[in-house]
Amino acid sequence: MSGANDQALRARAERVIPAGMYGHQSTNFLPPNAPQFFAKAKGSYLWDYDDKKYLDFMSGYGPNLFGYCNDEVDTAYKEQMDRIDVATGPTGLMVELAEAFCNRVTHADWAAFCKNGTDATSMALMTARAHADKRKVLIASGAYHGAANWCTPFPSGTLPEERAHFIYYQYNDAESLHAAAAEAGDDLAGIFASPFKHDVLVDQELPDLEYAKAAREICNEKNALLIVDDIRGGFRIERDCSWHAMGIEPDLSSWGKAIANGHPLSCLLGSERAREAFKKLYVTGSFWFSGAVMAASLKTLELIDSTDYLEHTIMLGDQLRSGLSKVAANYELNISQTGPSQMPLIMFNDDEGNRDMTIGGAFADGMIKRGVYFHPFHNMFINAAMTEKDIALAVETADEVVKDIRSA
Amino acid sequence: MSGANDQALRARAERVIPAGMYGHQSTNFLPPNAPQFFAKAKGSYLWDYDDKKYLDFMSGYGPNLFGYCNDEVDTAYKEQMDRIDVATGPTGLMVELAEAFCNRVTHADWAAFCKNGTDATSMALMTARAHADKRKVLIASGAYHGAANWCTPFPSGTLPEERAHFIYYQYNDAESLHAAAAEAGDDLAGIFASPFKHDVLVDQELPDLEYAKAAREICNEKNALLIVDDIRGGFRIERDCSWHAMGIEPDLSSWGKAIANGHPLSCLLGSERAREAFKKLYVTGSFWFSGAVMAASLKTLELIDSTDYLEHTIMLGDQLRSGLSKVAANYELNISQTGPSQMPLIMFNDDEGNRDMTIGGAFADGMIKRGVYFHPFHNMFINAAMTEKDIALAVETADEVVKDIRSA
Repeated sequence: MSGANDQALRARAERVIPAGMYGHQSTNFLPPNAPQFFAKAKGSYLWDYDDKKYLDFMSGYGPNLFGYCNDEVDTAYKEQMDRIDVATGPTGLMVELAEAFCNRVTHADWAAFCKNGTDATSMALMTARAHADKRKVLIASGAYHGAANWCTPFPSGTLPEERAHFIYYQYNDAESLHAAAAEAGDDLAGIFASPFKHDVLVDQELPDLEYAKAAREICNEKNALLIVDDIRGGFRIERDCSWHAMGIEPDLSSWGKAIANGHPLSCLLGSERAREAFKKLYVTGSFWFSGAVMAASLKTLELIDSTDYLEHTIMLGDQLRSGLSKVAANYELNISQTGPSQMPLIMFNDDEGNRDMTIGGAFADGMIKRGVYFHPFHNMFINAAMTEKDIALAVETADEVVKDIRSA
Repeated sequence: MSGANDQALRARAERVIPAGMYGHQSTNFLPPNAPQFFAKAKGSYLWDYDDKKYLDFMSGYGPNLFGYCNDEVDTAYKEQMDRIDVATGPTGLMVELAEAFCNRVTHADWAAFCKNGTDATSMALMTARAHADKRKVLIASGAYHGAANWCTPFPSGTLPEERAHFIYYQYNDAESLHAAAAEAGDDLAGIFASPFKHDVLVDQELPDLEYAKAAREICNEKNALLIVDDIRGGFRIERDCSWHAMGIEPDLSSWGKAIANGHPLSCLLGSERAREAFKKLYVTGSFWFSGAVMAASLKTLELIDSTDYLEHTIMLGDQLRSGLSKVAANYELNISQTGPSQMPLIMFNDDEGNRDMTIGGAFADGMIKRGVYFHPFHNMFINAAMTEKDIALAVETADEVVKDIRSA
């Protein structure tokens, strides 16, 4: 169970927040040792309200790329806040930042900034439909593209009409994608694709080139727009759109989470082909033109350019993966480690090879209890402030936890 | 025309942002002297990139309540940013802030925080539908409740299906509301109401008690939820929900803009009656659990309690209204000043009494040219950092501008 102060906060929260907490940061589906609230963050570490320290493998579910409370990024934010932040018009930083994204991301000829990842995917959906005034949109079954009415994974409070004209296909299955496109006929507006399959609870899959090529070709043939939803994977896979290394350039890509190292910013990037469609939309938000967050994002892009953060997080991810593999082998545990190693999903299977959430839950709980924050069913995020020593500590801790599980 | 540096920024923006700018802060529909970009803000003043200073009557389209770069609020934000901001879980400030809102707003028994005003109205819509698993929602024709697929005022890129089961009524018209409710039959989920009619381009109207009572009674009779969308008006009309003074308490109210004095925060407040419905939703966002913005909001609520900001802005609004009335009378101009005086909408009519956007546009343009930022067709926002001298300056400037218009 989490500490006494955390429990006291939960009791207060229960009265003034429905169910005590909502959304992806609710601990209602997490193991008992996971604290609901955190009091302090620095680099790769978190402290709860009972002064317990955690090496954090969730990085805020993605936003933390260069370490919590990163001095360079936060100083840029604060200095801009003292000049001008949210006001009656944007600052010139918005132009600089749009230029920086267009320089960095191969397919991008323009940018539109917003706040939530869901704003960016919603704008992508609207842009695709406005492009040639068509309606059908292909979405991979089980993929997460946000929590608005049209995409929240739990449909309470939404209407079937809000998902009219979506056709679902199987990720990485070119045949299934072709079938969905055929079903759309001449009414195909766009195709959504995650950079890799990062659904919760199931093994992650890197993208298959044949599938990605099919998505691009269908969009070319049918005058539809290809959307890569890079909110979770953006800048964690490539210093460009995540499909760039495969040679596939989308028409639209949605970004969020890490692009301002934890400060609230998301954006939609588009190619020339999609520009006129975006011009037709009316999309906006009270805080979308904030100068401070754009200063933070410019600094984050600078760090992306000037540091080896990407190679470093991949190296640490590989170290974690091989370390955990050895631990699992030693104790004859059937472990699934999938996805890019810097965005690892770690799940457990029983001796027959079936997914075993009981072992997975006990493993995450044991890690958290010992001060290493692991998630039992969501991909995790290695951040650039982590060190080889941190990973070694995580592997040692895993050894202890697995030993306990085996002896229980 | 705006200055040379502003024009240069616009030219750069044109290349990397569709149409040069999007959303409510685009100057594409504003008079030529309105700068697109601002370089500095302090209190009630803005500076553009050509070092021109403006007394700003837009307050960032609402977020600025206690002055730009407010030291107390911004210090709270920065200090919390140094401890922990966006992380793997919320901070205890989220509980404190939910408690503070529930203490302050009579109808509120719980709070759920988000980023955009549109997030709060979208959650209200979903909560109303989840409450008794019904679909129809009544919305005042022409009212603005955000810019998501289901509510953006310009429907390019959206589908008619996304607005299925909305029934439109006339604001302040109890009869029209009853007719809409009758049309909904036993499928009524909720009624949206702005705190007062603050649509663009038309005169504002304070709420009619009979209409507000009818909305409450229909929701009681039909087990539907009444939603007051207080994003624009919240804490600018009352230190409570804006309908509190009329004795009408909604089940849900949506808040945003000014609640953290410019820092990005919105929220949905609910009564006990609506709690179970909200529990059924899956709504979330990467940055919704930010500690820094909650620290800023707690400080803003403290200022709401401890200062005469409300009486001060009303007094200044009255001063502006009577000053402009005199100017208009002197020059025999037919001027419409509507809405709460602290959220004034100022429009011009021709000698036959018909709306005259040419005079209105020329008036706003002349004001902006002389350093007083007025909007030609959106309600404005008096902020608490303004002084009687500021208002006197605005009225003097209006006198000069109107004189020019009359002599032209």
